[in-house]
Amino acid sequence: MGAELFGFEVLARDGATRARCARLHTPHGAVETPAFMPVGTRGTVKGVMPQELRAAGARMLLANTYHLHLRPGEETVRALGGLHRFMNWAGPLLTDSGGYQVFSLAGISKVDDDGVSFQSVIDGSRVRFTPERAVEVQATLGADVQMAFDHCPSDPRDRALVAAACERTQRWLERCVRRHRELGGENRGQALFGIVQGGIFADLRRAAVEAVCAHDLVGYAIGGVSVGETREDMRAAVEASAPLLPESKPRYLMGVGTPVDFFDAVAQGVDLFDCVTPTRHGRTHQAFTSLGQLNLRNADFARDPRTLDPECDCPCCLGFSRGYLRHLCKSNEMLGAQLLTLHNLRFFARIFERMRAAIAEGSLAQLREEFLPKAMRRVSAAELGC
Amino acid sequence: MGAELFGFEVLARDGATRARCARLHTPHGAVETPAFMPVGTRGTVKGVMPQELRAAGARMLLANTYHLHLRPGEETVRALGGLHRFMNWAGPLLTDSGGYQVFSLAGISKVDDDGVSFQSVIDGSRVRFTPERAVEVQATLGADVQMAFDHCPSDPRDRALVAAACERTQRWLERCVRRHRELGGENRGQALFGIVQGGIFADLRRAAVEAVCAHDLVGYAIGGVSVGETREDMRAAVEASAPLLPESKPRYLMGVGTPVDFFDAVAQGVDLFDCVTPTRHGRTHQAFTSLGQLNLRNADFARDPRTLDPECDCPCCLGFSRGYLRHLCKSNEMLGAQLLTLHNLRFFARIFERMRAAIAEGSLAQLREEFLPKAMRRVSAAELGC
Repeated sequence: MGAELFGFEVLARDGATRARCARLHTPHGAVETPAFMPVGTRGTVKGVMPQELRAAGARMLLANTYHLHLRPGEETVRALGGLHRFMNWAGPLLTDSGGYQVFSLAGISKVDDDGVSFQSVIDGSRVRFTPERAVEVQATLGADVQMAFDHCPSDPRDRALVAAACERTQRWLERCVRRHRELGGENRGQALFGIVQGGIFADLRRAAVEAVCAHDLVGYAIGGVSVGETREDMRAAVEASAPLLPESKPRYLMGVGTPVDFFDAVAQGVDLFDCVTPTRHGRTHQAFTSLGQLNLRNADFARDPRTLDPECDCPCCLGFSRGYLRHLCKSNEMLGAQLLTLHNLRFFARIFERMRAAIAEGSLAQLREEFLPKAMRRVSAAELGC
Repeated sequence: MGAELFGFEVLARDGATRARCARLHTPHGAVETPAFMPVGTRGTVKGVMPQELRAAGARMLLANTYHLHLRPGEETVRALGGLHRFMNWAGPLLTDSGGYQVFSLAGISKVDDDGVSFQSVIDGSRVRFTPERAVEVQATLGADVQMAFDHCPSDPRDRALVAAACERTQRWLERCVRRHRELGGENRGQALFGIVQGGIFADLRRAAVEAVCAHDLVGYAIGGVSVGETREDMRAAVEASAPLLPESKPRYLMGVGTPVDFFDAVAQGVDLFDCVTPTRHGRTHQAFTSLGQLNLRNADFARDPRTLDPECDCPCCLGFSRGYLRHLCKSNEMLGAQLLTLHNLRFFARIFERMRAAIAEGSLAQLREEFLPKAMRRVSAAELGC
């Protein structure tokens, strides 16, 4: 029955790279991959209505267990009909396990093999997460995919730390899988993805892949990247993990990233991504465009009557001038953040639409060459003829 | 030619009151009145996309000359195609003259019969507004309707102050009319509305109406209300002004207000309103509903699965629970302010839709009795069965 609720079909391969197009089936619909998942930390992608997300091309969203556990609490989400109903999002959803936030944000008071205790950022109260608890909280939230509770080491280059975190992550995964199965496994309509740690060390990554895959889960994630390491280190970590993960299962690179990261990782066979980049950059008035990355607070845009990105079809680019956007941003008007967030989300979704088309045609490398040099460049208003 | 660009047709009368339904024609389309104009202070109705405003039933918007003059400056708005293009709003627009803001917000350094000098809230620089300048700035912004530059007295009960402000407002109106005609008058596609001051004094209001109407303008406004006086005083000021204004011209009550004010003023023959109430209340998590006024931060709503207002058809009420709205508001998520603003705007637009229908049927008093007792009441979550 779990096999009916979840599925992963590889539809096309690039040939020249390990990239593939696939379709991930969930109880709330299918997602064409490679795909980018916008982040709805507290059960809302900041400043964006669900129908706008869908119109921007988003098909699967991520929400944060850590934040939702603290407020409003998973039982409140369940009382309001579960996470889909709560967010008014009918499509697939994924919740992270809280592990990343627990280790990166929280004032940890105690961490041991059993779990982690930390202070709530909301009221200072003591909160305890264990592998079992993380599974239970996510089961109560009710996303289509939940993530195993892992130990994400703070420094991916510290071998002793990373090795210990890997071992703990493996022990915790066993407990997550057991609790997940006790609760009904995939038959409840929720899949559990395991997480591969290992920092920048290829041998640790390889061992972690073997340990995680021994559980025959619906999908696998690569964690412990985008935590401050260099792009080369991140690329090496992905190369040491993604190709070893089973061809027949979705691969999710957690917390990544920027367009160049997507091209790098998709070429290694990664299928799913999430990151706050498009939304956070939108709120800080940075736009990703086909012409390069623009800072909309730049005074040179003040009288620029052109739309943000001549190649974009988002609501922001279909009616508003750069001059108006600059005015909104300078005035800290909500609409500035809203429009730039919508644009960035559409820009990210279009990268993946174009990557999927290129993979099907075997032309991913060509797309990369056409696309990245312009898109990754910081461009000044003067260069755009303002 | 001005007569072709602007027009005002009375379509129906209530009979029992002075209320009428009419159609105001502008170069950017017609507005069915009585109508409420949402406020787009800095050229944006905070947190709302133009197409959402239109879907909520808004047909004419107001923008503030004072704020747009200071930032981005009217010449920038003109360079970006004028106010309609700037805001991406194809429908009718009105700009106030800046008079209200100059007298209520600004650090005034000098006020005399020639004009007002004040400090910019943005950079502290000295700014000067005169009647001619206010007309010129508004001509450059390019709304369909501009307002005369008036002196709005700070205390509507201080007879000496109000009388002096009335006289100054009349002298300034002459200068506004002259400058407006020098610039081409209505033929440029912009009408000038005069403003009736007079505080709470019926004789001063009557004299002000006569003085303003001597100029045979496209429309007339009642100013100097909603500045801290009681509801009875406001009602008296409107009763002393509105019925004396010509039947054949639109009457605009500036800066008002709440549903009960609308019913009061429409019964006196007022056609147009503007106020920040629906938008500001939305941002502070107050909702106007058919059940009463709700504070969405109330803990009692935390697990309420019902939509905000069972009688509403806005995007907020078609998909989100009160519990989710409460979560967004408690978490200070942008989407909470956006959804409640959209709802309040739709609620205000529906009041006017219902008033127009009731006037055509001669049943305005009945609508008032049905509608106001519930809508004006602060209602607790407990009363709603939460």
